[in-house]
Amino acid sequence: MYINLDLEATEPIYTQLKNQIIAGIARKEILPGEGLPSVRSLAADIGINLHTVNKAYQQLKQEGFILIHRQKGVVVHPDGVPKADSDHIKQLKHILHPLIAESVCRDISEKEFIQLCKGLYREFQEEEGGEE
Amino acid sequence: MYINLDLEATEPIYTQLKNQIIAGIARKEILPGEGLPSVRSLAADIGINLHTVNKAYQQLKQEGFILIHRQKGVVVHPDGVPKADSDHIKQLKHILHPLIAESVCRDISEKEFIQLCKGLYREFQEEEGGEE
Repeated sequence: MYINLDLEATEPIYTQLKNQIIAGIARKEILPGEGLPSVRSLAADIGINLHTVNKAYQQLKQEGFILIHRQKGVVVHPDGVPKADSDHIKQLKHILHPLIAESVCRDISEKEFIQLCKGLYREFQEEEGGEE
Repeated sequence: MYINLDLEATEPIYTQLKNQIIAGIARKEILPGEGLPSVRSLAADIGINLHTVNKAYQQLKQEGFILIHRQKGVVVHPDGVPKADSDHIKQLKHILHPLIAESVCRDISEKEFIQLCKGLYREFQEEEGGEE
């Protein structure tokens, strides 16, 4: 998986790193049980602080994407990422609500918004299809 | 417009306040040119810090939702909120991308995700219809 960080962006580096790993899992570039680089080696490879990598990994662990073994190191959760439960759906709605409120204010129609989402879903489906 | 803040939530109060004002504009509960309470009176009314209200108002101003006049006070932008341009759409995609990546990982289908978005859009349309 290729990690591409924008060190000039306002978005924190650990968030960028976390999101790219999640995208890699969504695209099945990294599969359940597969290893990720250690904190130390990933930090050295991309030239960022150990703590930044650690923060991304800790959040990914908390959210069920990865396991951090003392011996086996960092692996994508072998049982797969936990499926969305009703709490997760509630949280997702809570995040989408202000995005859609702002979109309504800025005259982005429901149709346009849905097209954007469909386009993004397609990105993950295409990658999946391509690899199988 | 009714402001309902959750002081126990992890989401910053200024973000909650900002999002609720945007939602109020989206629902046309507050119209272009209409006044909002001053920083001082809103802070007193909801019992939060002046700086919290000020931070929310400053961000709303920067993003084109409101104007802050020395004399007229705080008003919803009389020309309406600026329409989404290509930069805004790019930014929206950037926010939706990790949400959709995570949804793919957590087995939320495209159809389910689209249904969620449609449900949220409906909230704003119903309110609009109800007031006219």
